[in-house]
Amino acid sequence: MLESIKSTDTRTDPYKVYLQEDEIPTAFYNVRADMHTAHAPILHPGTLQPVELADLEPVFCTELAKQELNTTDRYIDIPGAVMDFYRMYRPSPLVRAYYLEKALDTPAKIYYKYEGGNTSGSHKLNSAIAQAYYAKQQGLAGITTETGAGQWGTALAMASVYFGLDLEVYMVKASYEQKPYRKTIMRTYGASITASPSDTTNVGRTMLAEYPDSLGSLGTAISEAVEVALASNGTKRYTLGSVLNQVLLHQSIIGLEAKAALEKLNVYPDIVIGCAGGGSNLGGLMSSYMEDRLAGRKAPYFIAVEPASCPSLTRGRFAYDFCDTGMVTPLAKMYTLGHAFMPSPSHAGGLRYHGMSPILSQLYHDGLLDEARSVEQTEVFEAAVQFARSEGTLPAPESAHAIHATIQEALKCRESGEEKVILFGLTGNGLLDLSAYEQYLTGTMSDTIPTDEDLARGFATIPSLPGIQ
Amino acid sequence: MLESIKSTDTRTDPYKVYLQEDEIPTAFYNVRADMHTAHAPILHPGTLQPVELADLEPVFCTELAKQELNTTDRYIDIPGAVMDFYRMYRPSPLVRAYYLEKALDTPAKIYYKYEGGNTSGSHKLNSAIAQAYYAKQQGLAGITTETGAGQWGTALAMASVYFGLDLEVYMVKASYEQKPYRKTIMRTYGASITASPSDTTNVGRTMLAEYPDSLGSLGTAISEAVEVALASNGTKRYTLGSVLNQVLLHQSIIGLEAKAALEKLNVYPDIVIGCAGGGSNLGGLMSSYMEDRLAGRKAPYFIAVEPASCPSLTRGRFAYDFCDTGMVTPLAKMYTLGHAFMPSPSHAGGLRYHGMSPILSQLYHDGLLDEARSVEQTEVFEAAVQFARSEGTLPAPESAHAIHATIQEALKCRESGEEKVILFGLTGNGLLDLSAYEQYLTGTMSDTIPTDEDLARGFATIPSLPGIQ
Repeated sequence: MLESIKSTDTRTDPYKVYLQEDEIPTAFYNVRADMHTAHAPILHPGTLQPVELADLEPVFCTELAKQELNTTDRYIDIPGAVMDFYRMYRPSPLVRAYYLEKALDTPAKIYYKYEGGNTSGSHKLNSAIAQAYYAKQQGLAGITTETGAGQWGTALAMASVYFGLDLEVYMVKASYEQKPYRKTIMRTYGASITASPSDTTNVGRTMLAEYPDSLGSLGTAISEAVEVALASNGTKRYTLGSVLNQVLLHQSIIGLEAKAALEKLNVYPDIVIGCAGGGSNLGGLMSSYMEDRLAGRKAPYFIAVEPASCPSLTRGRFAYDFCDTGMVTPLAKMYTLGHAFMPSPSHAGGLRYHGMSPILSQLYHDGLLDEARSVEQTEVFEAAVQFARSEGTLPAPESAHAIHATIQEALKCRESGEEKVILFGLTGNGLLDLSAYEQYLTGTMSDTIPTDEDLARGFATIPSLPGIQ
Repeated sequence: MLESIKSTDTRTDPYKVYLQEDEIPTAFYNVRADMHTAHAPILHPGTLQPVELADLEPVFCTELAKQELNTTDRYIDIPGAVMDFYRMYRPSPLVRAYYLEKALDTPAKIYYKYEGGNTSGSHKLNSAIAQAYYAKQQGLAGITTETGAGQWGTALAMASVYFGLDLEVYMVKASYEQKPYRKTIMRTYGASITASPSDTTNVGRTMLAEYPDSLGSLGTAISEAVEVALASNGTKRYTLGSVLNQVLLHQSIIGLEAKAALEKLNVYPDIVIGCAGGGSNLGGLMSSYMEDRLAGRKAPYFIAVEPASCPSLTRGRFAYDFCDTGMVTPLAKMYTLGHAFMPSPSHAGGLRYHGMSPILSQLYHDGLLDEARSVEQTEVFEAAVQFARSEGTLPAPESAHAIHATIQEALKCRESGEEKVILFGLTGNGLLDLSAYEQYLTGTMSDTIPTDEDLARGFATIPSLPGIQ
């Protein structure tokens, strides 16, 4: 008989740290109250004047509109009924990636905050339940939204059924037809789903008249969902899963929990890494550490990772642009590729938005978000498979962008011998992204990097606003 | 402004109890050492004599073969390298189903042990990693197995890559063609997968010659995987995810953890409910409480729930039968529908096995497993959707059998006013079973109950063994 295989257990930390349920943070952190430079005001698309509460109230629940404009309250209490829901699936685990460290033979200490353990499969549920709560509190009948790959729609369906709200989801037609599974989950949770562009809205009919075969885009789906809310005689409001200040506010729970868990281990990260599409995950993950930086304390080095196919931070312009393709939403000053920029359909997963959270855009512009880098998707999936095989969990393609950068940083530590502490956000699991994995494994996945001409066509759609910077 | 929606938090327990990583049990419980009546010996298919270690060693790793035959050691230490892996995804949470209780308006207290949080999506990983460990320890090059819907194959792929073992999976052709996603996960973890019946084995070629369009069965896939292991010149062994004594041994970790977590709450269940296909989950979940019953202490009422389409306990015969369709495996005395019984292909999910774990069969025969009931699948999915909407987590169809019985028992408590404590096993999540949910939601799911004639055809394949009871 051979020798037993020895345990390789050399833990100094546990693999996973769960806060107690009563240690879940009870207030969101509002980074805007601490920002050195406020982001430029959101502009009304008709008047081009800064929007006020009254402008937002037809679109958003009043309380959420207030949060959108709030630059003064550093902490905002989480309502008790939202805390109830959080306790069903939070705290999410903070995991020490011992096996990835070993596979990389790195002296770096790698931690990740895993948000993919709930049925929606991602961190989107954190904001979905807050948005559903405020809609219910306002006595609304229902809410509308758009969804691309479906994570946000799924999260909002779970949140809506909890509060007994009607939910109408406009789902990008490409996903509606090719990714039926999240549609089924949404229906299981009682949502009604329409493929976008659709004939149920003016925006959709216009788009279909011009492009009858359009497979849709997030921008168009946003326009449709907003139009339906505006046409509801005040009984419904629109909700959005990323980009907005209110979303980053709600997602701050990721960073607050991560910091509380790391403090139990007496660990402070040197580097914080998050994937960035609209900015909801990175904005949330880094919130509690950005608070340190803005207060002038020691802080980590922050890295945003975006897809090379949709490189708003790394190749976009910092300018006012519409948040949607249909130009019905307000304009925000942000890093943008132009509201009509259309990323290649061969790109897997989310992170396909043309713009970036105004908060993150301003922090990046000011050098407070230290670095943005873009990654090609075949490299991303190579990192995803390495992570899956070493750590067990199959990551979402979005999250794998952060994994890729984490591996790069950990390998730098192997070169230099530095024992840096890296925290990254594992925003979701990849169980409903298996067709993308299949493409990668069979060698049929291609990288899709826009040419300068592609970008120029997008930039041409950024509005010129004389007198406004 | 309306009043805030009040928190409904009336917790006496936390929602979720996680043991500390150092509280994960370090030994498996071997119920056979305590059974009042040993199950009848497994018989060699050629000699019809009780199998001995030497008979099993060509098929199973030696250490697993010893476990298969072990009737004396009450506890068997979990190897350190297996504990390492368990700490990556265990302890699994014990959840108090507050929101289901509220939805049912029941005084019952409902707890569930959730095993679906890992990437394999089910409890199968608990035995997969143990089986892979003993194969590696024995110096084997690889292992073979079969998989139906794919949970077991996925779990074994994760376990095999961890120990650097080759894995050949024979996947029932119906699932291989119609459920491509678990196949992709298995490939991500480096497994090679063959649709069964295949032309790579004698059993497969014989089946294909007779039924060229066969979509396969678990029984046939088992035969193929065993044949490949036997033909490997001793470099490979066969592994199985259910039915076997060794599997119930490994799955005892579910019950040991559940009991330890409930003891932290000072709670002892009145009823323990598990779904039952081959018996791995129920056998594991109830293990630690069955220990109480066998010792004559207070114990819960045990309920096994099986599909009406494959009712081995409720309509089967307690008799010696082959464990596979191809009749290459030993014979076990168990509740069986006949090794050639073929459940309707319209049945969703697992639990499609013709037999039942010999341990559970004996316990049921002796009245120690109190009750078995069968449920039709439309009722099962009704329970699944109710659970998903109230508790958040989308359950696997298999697990939803246990949910259905739990709801029945909780509603009885509402009638009687009794505050019974119910513990059930939520064996997995339903994220890769969404086509079945879609069938249910669109009203295209049918119930598939075998007629007496169907059963008679299956029973006719149970071998007649003169002189052997």
